[in-house]
Amino acid sequence: MRIGLVGLGRMGFNMRERLRRAGHEVIGYDRDPQVRDVSGLRELVAELSGPRLVWLMVPAGDPTRQTVAELAELLSPGDLIIEGGNSRYTDDQEHAKLLAEHGVGYLDCGVSGGVWGLEVGYGLMVGGDAELVERAMPIFDALRPEGPREEGFAHAGGVGAGHYAKMVHNGIEYGLMQAYAEGFELLDASDVVTDVPAVLKAWSRGTVVRSWLLDLLIKALDSDPELDDLRGYVEDSGEGRWTVQEAINHAVPAPVISAALFARFASRQPDSPAMRAVAALRNQFGGHAVQQAGPSSGTGQVSDGS
Amino acid sequence: MRIGLVGLGRMGFNMRERLRRAGHEVIGYDRDPQVRDVSGLRELVAELSGPRLVWLMVPAGDPTRQTVAELAELLSPGDLIIEGGNSRYTDDQEHAKLLAEHGVGYLDCGVSGGVWGLEVGYGLMVGGDAELVERAMPIFDALRPEGPREEGFAHAGGVGAGHYAKMVHNGIEYGLMQAYAEGFELLDASDVVTDVPAVLKAWSRGTVVRSWLLDLLIKALDSDPELDDLRGYVEDSGEGRWTVQEAINHAVPAPVISAALFARFASRQPDSPAMRAVAALRNQFGGHAVQQAGPSSGTGQVSDGS
Amino acid sequence: MRIGLVGLGRMGFNMRERLRRAGHEVIGYDRDPQVRDVSGLRELVAELSGPRLVWLMVPAGDPTRQTVAELAELLSPGDLIIEGGNSRYTDDQEHAKLLAEHGVGYLDCGVSGGVWGLEVGYGLMVGGDAELVERAMPIFDALRPEGPREEGFAHAGGVGAGHYAKMVHNGIEYGLMQAYAEGFELLDASDVVTDVPAVLKAWSRGTVVRSWLLDLLIKALDSDPELDDLRGYVEDSGEGRWTVQEAINHAVPAPVISAALFARFASRQPDSPAMRAVAALRNQFGGHAVQQAGPSSGTGQVSDGS
Amino acid sequence: MRIGLVGLGRMGFNMRERLRRAGHEVIGYDRDPQVRDVSGLRELVAELSGPRLVWLMVPAGDPTRQTVAELAELLSPGDLIIEGGNSRYTDDQEHAKLLAEHGVGYLDCGVSGGVWGLEVGYGLMVGGDAELVERAMPIFDALRPEGPREEGFAHAGGVGAGHYAKMVHNGIEYGLMQAYAEGFELLDASDVVTDVPAVLKAWSRGTVVRSWLLDLLIKALDSDPELDDLRGYVEDSGEGRWTVQEAINHAVPAPVISAALFARFASRQPDSPAMRAVAALRNQFGGHAVQQAGPSSGTGQVSDGS
Repeated sequence: MRIGLVGLGRMGFNMRERLRRAGHEVIGYDRDPQVRDVSGLRELVAELSGPRLVWLMVPAGDPTRQTVAELAELLSPGDLIIEGGNSRYTDDQEHAKLLAEHGVGYLDCGVSGGVWGLEVGYGLMVGGDAELVERAMPIFDALRPEGPREEGFAHAGGVGAGHYAKMVHNGIEYGLMQAYAEGFELLDASDVVTDVPAVLKAWSRGTVVRSWLLDLLIKALDSDPELDDLRGYVEDSGEGRWTVQEAINHAVPAPVISAALFARFASRQPDSPAMRAVAALRNQFGGHAVQQAGPSSGTGQVSDGS
Repeated sequence: MRIGLVGLGRMGFNMRERLRRAGHEVIGYDRDPQVRDVSGLRELVAELSGPRLVWLMVPAGDPTRQTVAELAELLSPGDLIIEGGNSRYTDDQEHAKLLAEHGVGYLDCGVSGGVWGLEVGYGLMVGGDAELVERAMPIFDALRPEGPREEGFAHAGGVGAGHYAKMVHNGIEYGLMQAYAEGFELLDASDVVTDVPAVLKAWSRGTVVRSWLLDLLIKALDSDPELDDLRGYVEDSGEGRWTVQEAINHAVPAPVISAALFARFASRQPDSPAMRAVAALRNQFGGHAVQQAGPSSGTGQVSDGS
Repeated sequence: MRIGLVGLGRMGFNMRERLRRAGHEVIGYDRDPQVRDVSGLRELVAELSGPRLVWLMVPAGDPTRQTVAELAELLSPGDLIIEGGNSRYTDDQEHAKLLAEHGVGYLDCGVSGGVWGLEVGYGLMVGGDAELVERAMPIFDALRPEGPREEGFAHAGGVGAGHYAKMVHNGIEYGLMQAYAEGFELLDASDVVTDVPAVLKAWSRGTVVRSWLLDLLIKALDSDPELDDLRGYVEDSGEGRWTVQEAINHAVPAPVISAALFARFASRQPDSPAMRAVAALRNQFGGHAVQQAGPSSGTGQVSDGS
Repeated sequence: MRIGLVGLGRMGFNMRERLRRAGHEVIGYDRDPQVRDVSGLRELVAELSGPRLVWLMVPAGDPTRQTVAELAELLSPGDLIIEGGNSRYTDDQEHAKLLAEHGVGYLDCGVSGGVWGLEVGYGLMVGGDAELVERAMPIFDALRPEGPREEGFAHAGGVGAGHYAKMVHNGIEYGLMQAYAEGFELLDASDVVTDVPAVLKAWSRGTVVRSWLLDLLIKALDSDPELDDLRGYVEDSGEGRWTVQEAINHAVPAPVISAALFARFASRQPDSPAMRAVAALRNQFGGHAVQQAGPSSGTGQVSDGS
């Protein structure tokens, strides 16, 4: 097939390559002249013939919204846009509505796999009409991993379902990462376990906790056994936040995913206002004098809370 | 009454004063010669006549254990020890057993109130035999706040019940403090609330969240409206830990108390090994190149988890 | 002063009474003919003379939005609406904008105190212009508890700040309630503490955890010492949810408040889909036969996770 | 090699089979006459010649302790016991000490893999002296999965390190399971995702969350797409509890693992005392009348917390 691809960052760049290896013709556009095939959206559209297929891989939020709006003007009835970025599923519903007014179809596609996707393939979750999904299937088949289609691709539901599924995927991912991380720290803190990387590596096969994320952690420890080259400072993207907010909207308890999210927030605070408040309260128990006081020299004590 | 008091730190020193104001004769012993009335436990015992009453106010763990063991040798059948420190309730059961072999009675008493107790009185939770509780009641009445006895004193059950109740009291306290602290941080982060101390002060009367802890936080903000003089570094004492461990032993869910405890642990970590592991995993998604990379210049993206 | 009051439910009804006791003239409107003074908003407005003051006490969301919209048409430039319900602070900003187009002023006021407010007074947190706050001060003074104004009233900031503060107040409240609740359950589970209500009552004075909420819990235990008359099923209102969502928006860790919220969600689930998934996973470890199997008769074992 | 194996439950039975397939001679003992090769520990020891090797696979706690004590009397200096069950690592240290007095060696070995281990092999984590580990290596090699030794086997440290590593493994497992479970529930609650099993299946390849546990969940959904045949009631074994208690001992924050543990506790409560306490508090806000009251008929409201 011939397809337009907007956004050639780390993800889009590799996806173009994987599609081409599968024999598809890809016209790529990016703001960066170094990587693009055409110089603008108009040129990209001109290179395609109807019914056109344009895949978006630009940052979620305003950049995606703006690209959808521009393409709505450039595309023709019967064309199809696939939003493969990380849009919030409610945005998808607005995109679909806008494009429907121009007779342009819309699918949302959650894409997982990171830089490994080029070789391994990408896990795909798609939302939208079955007929449109069918039309784009050669593209999905090229992007997804080899093996049975249903093990790397799902038609999850109507518009938004693909990104909803991806949102939940990322929320789960936060929880999984934090679970391994807490275990790592506890092994690290132990007096009896003397070879932490060896223990994690031994979990690679046969154990209940074996996973691709575990393999990645083992890999990281291979080159940096104490993870000393890194700081414990972790960003979060929108999807973890949306997962918890959506859980709240549905009254679904999400203690693990939210704990993982909050651990990231806390990791970025050089000093926590909340913990200053707790420290202030503890000082108040002990009286103002406590603030300057060193350890008591007597046998007496004041516990916190006594 | 005449009573021996071992341990004249911040708590014990004030308790001696409060007991004396109530007309009791207190013989105090401490390692610190500046504050003590007698020079040793032997001297303290000699100053009392049977049946003796000795109150312990020394640090929990080995110091208390050792003091109990020494007193077991010095006291006589019919004497009574009240452990007013922060012993774990299982320690109380061992202390009582040891002393029973010497015919010496034992009560455990959880004491709450901090430096404010001298003026306001101390909340007391006692474990042990009813007869012994009755014998020591004049002391409890002097220490507890004015008002109906049951509003500042409870006979909670057999040996250990007093410290068990105190342990839970402190666990709750951790949760309460953290709840206010999170609220404080969220107010502080807000764009619309411009006078955080005023909001907290306005909660003093009439609101659902009014409490003594809130009053203390307001007091702290009075002198330091941004809590800038403090670091968000918070110690914990044994009781918060014991509360969660005991909850686990009883299969009681304790998500709030444990979250408060973990927030304190995290506050003391200059860098978190767990979060280094999460950071390492995120780097692995994006490939090794990500570690040095600045923000992407293209319109493309790699989300975490994509 | 003369004031219109829309909404005479449990809160509004009592507030009318408290305002009248303070000497204000209150014209109350409610859908319920039994409690209202006038039969419609138009009649209510007619009973007031400019500049008018109308206090809203209707359910948050659509009912409040609709009432604001109707009053926008009925009121005159220079009039003032105070939204005393539980609107989300972002709604306030929309209300204020709409009313500004009609020259009508707007204040949002978070009100805390429940049914006790009639006698004790209500804690008030107000957002909006200082000039408007000043105009309504006689009303605020009548509603707030006696004592220094700043201990029951705060001008928290611009429009929305009052309800933002109330939102955080309620989030904190969730955390406080859950902390006491976990402690209660742990005392209840204990073998050594034999008189749980006595322990809670003893915390009334002198202790660190004393509070109005504790007093309410003691009151509840007075009439139902095991809380047997109740089910552990707890609703939540919008504010707890908003607090966590707002915390996420500001990257503020809120482990305690979110844990309290999730505990309420879980309390309402007769059966948890998530825990069915965990049960399904455990069954898979043990093989399909496990589902029907009773306890093993051998000395051997399969642990979960082995 | 020739080896004695005590405990032929689900795990031990399969391990005997796997060892025999690898060519080892296994003498198995169990209380159950149907599955055992010899009728008692004495007979088992008699069938082996020194230096003997005996693998234990009996329930943790007293059964293991008792078996170790009996074997201490029956074995000879130079013999070796491998504890392959789920002992707490502190128990291992006591076992090793006791056996050392008899000149008998001791290794602790955490074993992961469940019923799948027979075919796939078991992940092994071993604690104890390197010399003893070397002696038992043919057995470890037979039990572990095929592939590089270090991907299914680790010598984690001294005595106790194997079970410490297994404890952490299981703690992580709790977190992983709960993360998937929360995601499952959120997908299930969604209006837009209409095919939840398809989404999970699509995560099998290429995605960040792919894992063996995910494969098991997909398998479970294959035969029961709504998990309707199960109740959301989940047991826990000692290791999850120990992990959190150990984290507390080391001041390691473990919000995710503890949240997963508490979710299991809560899943087993038909009614939660803690949530009854929260419900009681909410009733107190609204006054006693609230308990019987249905929904208010007026337009007014009382929010929780107001």
